[in-house]
Amino acid sequence: MAENPATTVGIIAGSGVLPFAAVDSMRKRGIKFFLYPIRGFCDPERIKAFPHHWVALGQVGRLTRLLRAEGCRDVVFIGGLVRPALSDIRIDFGTLRVIPALAAAFRGGDDHLLSGVSRLFEQKGFRIVGVQDVAPELLMPEGSITRTLAGAESLADIATARALMHALSPFDVGQAVVVIDGHVIGIEGIEGTDGLLARIAQLRAEGRVRAKPGRGVLVKAPKTKQDLRFDLPTFGPKTIEGVAAAGLAGIGIVAGHALIADADRVVATADRQGLFVTGLPL
Amino acid sequence: MAENPATTVGIIAGSGVLPFAAVDSMRKRGIKFFLYPIRGFCDPERIKAFPHHWVALGQVGRLTRLLRAEGCRDVVFIGGLVRPALSDIRIDFGTLRVIPALAAAFRGGDDHLLSGVSRLFEQKGFRIVGVQDVAPELLMPEGSITRTLAGAESLADIATARALMHALSPFDVGQAVVVIDGHVIGIEGIEGTDGLLARIAQLRAEGRVRAKPGRGVLVKAPKTKQDLRFDLPTFGPKTIEGVAAAGLAGIGIVAGHALIADADRVVATADRQGLFVTGLPL
Repeated sequence: MAENPATTVGIIAGSGVLPFAAVDSMRKRGIKFFLYPIRGFCDPERIKAFPHHWVALGQVGRLTRLLRAEGCRDVVFIGGLVRPALSDIRIDFGTLRVIPALAAAFRGGDDHLLSGVSRLFEQKGFRIVGVQDVAPELLMPEGSITRTLAGAESLADIATARALMHALSPFDVGQAVVVIDGHVIGIEGIEGTDGLLARIAQLRAEGRVRAKPGRGVLVKAPKTKQDLRFDLPTFGPKTIEGVAAAGLAGIGIVAGHALIADADRVVATADRQGLFVTGLPL
Repeated sequence: MAENPATTVGIIAGSGVLPFAAVDSMRKRGIKFFLYPIRGFCDPERIKAFPHHWVALGQVGRLTRLLRAEGCRDVVFIGGLVRPALSDIRIDFGTLRVIPALAAAFRGGDDHLLSGVSRLFEQKGFRIVGVQDVAPELLMPEGSITRTLAGAESLADIATARALMHALSPFDVGQAVVVIDGHVIGIEGIEGTDGLLARIAQLRAEGRVRAKPGRGVLVKAPKTKQDLRFDLPTFGPKTIEGVAAAGLAGIGIVAGHALIADADRVVATADRQGLFVTGLPL
């Protein structure tokens, strides 16, 4: 596991920069790893620099065989995945044997799905660890990471957003909320945070967000029941650009429960735009 | 008031067909009325057929004078209004005197705003009544109004949506929710129901809603604390078209707490598309 560099960590790698940021972090700390990029999600160019075996979604048999072949016991899922439809999953022999568990996992919400996948791997003798276990410096810290700090009005908007997200937590939805001057303006559904921010920018362009630019917050938080070994809220430079385009004052993110992709660019972009980015206590 | 045809009801008329549907209904039942169309919102062509005085948003002094001039004591607000920014409101002498109350009303959410407006009129000796008091046949009835009925899966999705909306009720947001196969796909923010449905259609076009067409529901309900004399959820043929474009199975709407604009076209459109529209118990 993470504290024992003698063991190789298997990285199941989805889309985006996070798998590679995690790899950098693990290298620096001497943690051995082997990558299992998911076809159609992981960047095929960047993966070339690292030891890897490609896998397709749902190829549980192939994946477990290749994990064992490289001596991986700890497994971490990093990067983006769009929730697949059952019909998109390639079936192999290993998958066939676990289909009842997989079908059960797909009936619930995302949390349910991920817990199901986790149980499946644990039954096969692997241990699922979180990004925070293998690359803790990718986690959002508590407090401001920007020059600009959240003002009293932004703190009040953050409190409103968090209360709403707490109320939504049984429903496996709403990892991001926009609140301006006490009004809930938008709640993230399956469109994702970038989609939510684009909608706010559009509503502002149409004159339907009347608050002056530079007011209001985006708040990102994990769902209360979320399995933090998967699916941590992630933000990066694109999130900051979206918040700027939506005319908000800044972002509040639950510290230790969200990943920063490309932290240097996040801070530079936010500072240039005069936005705050602050890590909130859980 | 509604039960006493000797009194004239003052209709403050916003956008859309509802003010005119209400007028038809009141005429049939011999209730006297006088219209106060709001400039920029009410249809200037259709209003010509009825006795009316134009008013601008915020002209409380002019409006109360004109209501008294026509002997109106009961006042009903019907039709659409976009929440105005304070700077859009024309100030007259009557408004100036009530500015503290108006400013207080604008600090809260929509519910707060409307309660504030209501108190303002009540302090001046008027009584605010609901559309349901003067034109009850515009209200959504309980049960199905379409040939197609909601199946077991749709009923389960409706129950999920209602539980979520109940959880959201303290936050003055979320009058509509889309649930497909138990998953919460979208929650209405300030974009409105048409915006929510357009988003679902777009996500479907992008392959991000993987359920087959003809599954899932739109549920519309009043917010728990909502003042039902204002701002009843409204739906019409455009809502049905939006639900069809989003590939859902149908609509559940809380009976007696939502208005149908153009009921004949709603039913004809839904029947043609094979969608259900059902009135839910409160």
